[in-house]
Amino acid sequence: MSKKFKNAAVVLSGCGVFDGSEINEVVFTLLELERNLINYSVFAPDIYQYDVINHITGEKMKEKRNVLIESGRITRGKVKSFSELNPNEFDALVVPGGFGVAKNLSTFALEGPYCSINDEFANIMRAFNELSKPAAYMCIAPALLPKIFAGIKLTIGNDQFTADAIKTCGGEHITCSVDGIVKDHVYKIITTPAYMLAKNCLEAHHGISLLIKELKKEM
Amino acid sequence: MSKKFKNAAVVLSGCGVFDGSEINEVVFTLLELERNLINYSVFAPDIYQYDVINHITGEKMKEKRNVLIESGRITRGKVKSFSELNPNEFDALVVPGGFGVAKNLSTFALEGPYCSINDEFANIMRAFNELSKPAAYMCIAPALLPKIFAGIKLTIGNDQFTADAIKTCGGEHITCSVDGIVKDHVYKIITTPAYMLAKNCLEAHHGISLLIKELKKEM
Repeated sequence: MSKKFKNAAVVLSGCGVFDGSEINEVVFTLLELERNLINYSVFAPDIYQYDVINHITGEKMKEKRNVLIESGRITRGKVKSFSELNPNEFDALVVPGGFGVAKNLSTFALEGPYCSINDEFANIMRAFNELSKPAAYMCIAPALLPKIFAGIKLTIGNDQFTADAIKTCGGEHITCSVDGIVKDHVYKIITTPAYMLAKNCLEAHHGISLLIKELKKEM
Repeated sequence: MSKKFKNAAVVLSGCGVFDGSEINEVVFTLLELERNLINYSVFAPDIYQYDVINHITGEKMKEKRNVLIESGRITRGKVKSFSELNPNEFDALVVPGGFGVAKNLSTFALEGPYCSINDEFANIMRAFNELSKPAAYMCIAPALLPKIFAGIKLTIGNDQFTADAIKTCGGEHITCSVDGIVKDHVYKIITTPAYMLAKNCLEAHHGISLLIKELKKEM
């Protein structure tokens, strides 16, 4: 008999699209997990952000902020350190996007296909796969997948530069619209473009609702 | 003939429930405005936050942050200063909650019924009313209303301390559940408890969707 409530681990990378997690993506993810009766806990790395960006001007600010502490702004304080994430306690992994994924969880924003991934996060990514548990990645987050999962099929929408980086890493990029998802059946990993393409909240919410619904089927 | 698209001004007070705007409330507000085909622009005061709170521990951090700049994190940079808000260009005003309303837009968190309201914000609140334009306030934000609008009917849920403060200011507090709204027909102002009562995203989203739907009827 399957449990009524499944349990997802959600990974954040800060608070704000240009130096952390994309806030709308996180909020829509949590809303759709609840709507699908999936419990969740939220995790982030206890490290400094790569940078702090003034989101109005796009300029760097002379500040240091901690990824874990800032992530707590989105979740009303309910976020734990990566060190507390035990993949055995969860049925799925969910990774919203934002530049935080490419600057705090990895060096993708700086080094593209030659990036490295935060060690703790790379271990989390691998652990869910080794336990045959599904995962959902959105926005820029799928770009990290081929660094870990050889030959994986995924989407980041239609951005040619990012698609080329994915190919260089050995991933197979599938062009996809904002209201679509791509599923790799071997790795049980589902991806959607979200704010790589979304022009507003409605579009982002729609793609993420499909993503979470598909994730639930695999849980 | 009425215009197809109405236009709302949304007021933020930072980024994060304990020292700024409640993030989920803002995101659900923007989602529901879009769903109701209401265009929007977002505004915040160009002032320092009253404080900066570590959302995990609840402790004050030794930092200074600007309300306008931090508000931009939620809207991917699209936020303007209060000084650019011309009420003639909008059909309605929407004010999400969070402690930012009680600490940055007013001194309600410190002085309760004897609080003062940020001058620019008080002028905005009055201007929409003088133009007979409706407004929606959620969470703690309705607590400021009786300072401006004598005898107004409103809800902040069922918190007795806040309800008493509202009565002291001459407002009429109506107890209301998280999935309800209260409407003052004289002032055309609608309120909902949101995270004064919401236990999760679904509950907050539900109340806010009713709030925006009702607001649209008045636009």
